[in-house]
Amino acid sequence: MTFTEKLSRSIQSSNSVLSVGLDPDPKRIPLPLRQRISDPHDLVFEFCRRVIESTKSEAAAYKPNLAFFEALGSGGWKVLESLLDVIPHGKIIIADAKRGDIGTTAEKYKAAFFDMMQVDAITLNPLMGLETLDPYLDDNSKAVYVLTLTSNRGASDFLELPVEGRLTLGGYISEHLKKKQALSATSIGMVIGATKTATARQVLDAFQDSPLLIPGIGAQGGDPGQLSKMLMGHTGLPLVNSSRAIIYAGEDNENWEELVASKASETRLQLDPITQYYKTD
Amino acid sequence: MTFTEKLSRSIQSSNSVLSVGLDPDPKRIPLPLRQRISDPHDLVFEFCRRVIESTKSEAAAYKPNLAFFEALGSGGWKVLESLLDVIPHGKIIIADAKRGDIGTTAEKYKAAFFDMMQVDAITLNPLMGLETLDPYLDDNSKAVYVLTLTSNRGASDFLELPVEGRLTLGGYISEHLKKKQALSATSIGMVIGATKTATARQVLDAFQDSPLLIPGIGAQGGDPGQLSKMLMGHTGLPLVNSSRAIIYAGEDNENWEELVASKASETRLQLDPITQYYKTD
Repeated sequence: MTFTEKLSRSIQSSNSVLSVGLDPDPKRIPLPLRQRISDPHDLVFEFCRRVIESTKSEAAAYKPNLAFFEALGSGGWKVLESLLDVIPHGKIIIADAKRGDIGTTAEKYKAAFFDMMQVDAITLNPLMGLETLDPYLDDNSKAVYVLTLTSNRGASDFLELPVEGRLTLGGYISEHLKKKQALSATSIGMVIGATKTATARQVLDAFQDSPLLIPGIGAQGGDPGQLSKMLMGHTGLPLVNSSRAIIYAGEDNENWEELVASKASETRLQLDPITQYYKTD
Repeated sequence: MTFTEKLSRSIQSSNSVLSVGLDPDPKRIPLPLRQRISDPHDLVFEFCRRVIESTKSEAAAYKPNLAFFEALGSGGWKVLESLLDVIPHGKIIIADAKRGDIGTTAEKYKAAFFDMMQVDAITLNPLMGLETLDPYLDDNSKAVYVLTLTSNRGASDFLELPVEGRLTLGGYISEHLKKKQALSATSIGMVIGATKTATARQVLDAFQDSPLLIPGIGAQGGDPGQLSKMLMGHTGLPLVNSSRAIIYAGEDNENWEELVASKASETRLQLDPITQYYKTD
């Protein structure tokens, strides 16, 4: 199955464009669980397993954030490898790794994420140039989501900087990605912050059919209504990610899993206009 | 000891600015070793251990390239953790990870590399903005080397693009790093490709006292003579990295370790004018 088919089916069957981000911080894991499990690796595994269980009917995708696993050392990578087995078949898995390097190094990152972890997609940082993408582009069952306009304030330092006449660096990268896609088997997607509805236009216009990974709703404050308007006319399928606002929704309550489930459900509903727009497309 | 002191002592005591890059690819590991060790994790560990043993009198620093360890999964991270224990005390260790992310994610990468692995320095990708550096900047025993002008052809796509009047994106980043250093305990260094002697000027001029990590000699073709000229007037201490040209110098020969040692020695000698320039500085 191609990535695009898998993505489309996952959105269809979950009736959702929601991606749940897995950013497990041992200090923020609900107290009832922390009191029962002392080993940090077991704790992170069990927390994520239950988050997945509580959200699986609401999510089209899961996005583990590599930093949170690497902070636990090699054991953290092992936890992530084990977690991939508990994500239900058919969900899109995106390794949020933001790798970006050249030649043999990029080939090794590809081996790490596509061959060893067997995730569906990886986030990539294109700063070192377009050739950093090349090793990933021969597999139509996979996608790369390339940073073009991130949701943070600092995106204005470089990605929103004017580089070519009317274009920002993000828009310029986007134009190049569009050309790259014509020669690529792998789906080339873009990371576009939900908080950047004002400057996202040119990035989206330059590559109208790219799949999108949209962080920045939830804890970062992006508004689903604004986002819905921003996506009008864009034909590539979006996934809208929320991490902390969902996975820590239970705080230290005994019934934290129910609260996580209801926050995921509420978020899916907020995104429903987007889901229906793409489902009927 | 501060990072700058450790770096200076390491260059002084090894009489060298050479950094040896650890990019262990099981397929390229010398046949005599491959025939004796079948487990890929043990093979990579033993190869790197012997490379370190064969080069330790020639190198001021070691730069493990994360991709090559990640390609072996969680076991690869474990190999890297074990390898750090066999690098002689006093050598600078740089995790070539090229991470770049914001807020809590950057804090977790910092925990992974500075707290768990306890390396001296990490390479960072600044594309998402200057705030991506902030979590790393409170520790004067550490350094971050930020990508400003990489050695690859694709650097021309974005890093060599004009963004502000006479400035390239790399030069623009460099100016900002200079300002950042004034507020930072951690040493802020730059990654500057040895192949980019023509366009490196403005990047170096904008931040004259930054430590440098210079890839691109050896397999990538950068010329040590040209490099030496490029560094005239730069006051921050440089490390010049060679990976493949040294670690695979033995090819499949029985005496591969001697060949690795003599290639490291030859490279150190080529870099000697640079070493002496900074030792007498």
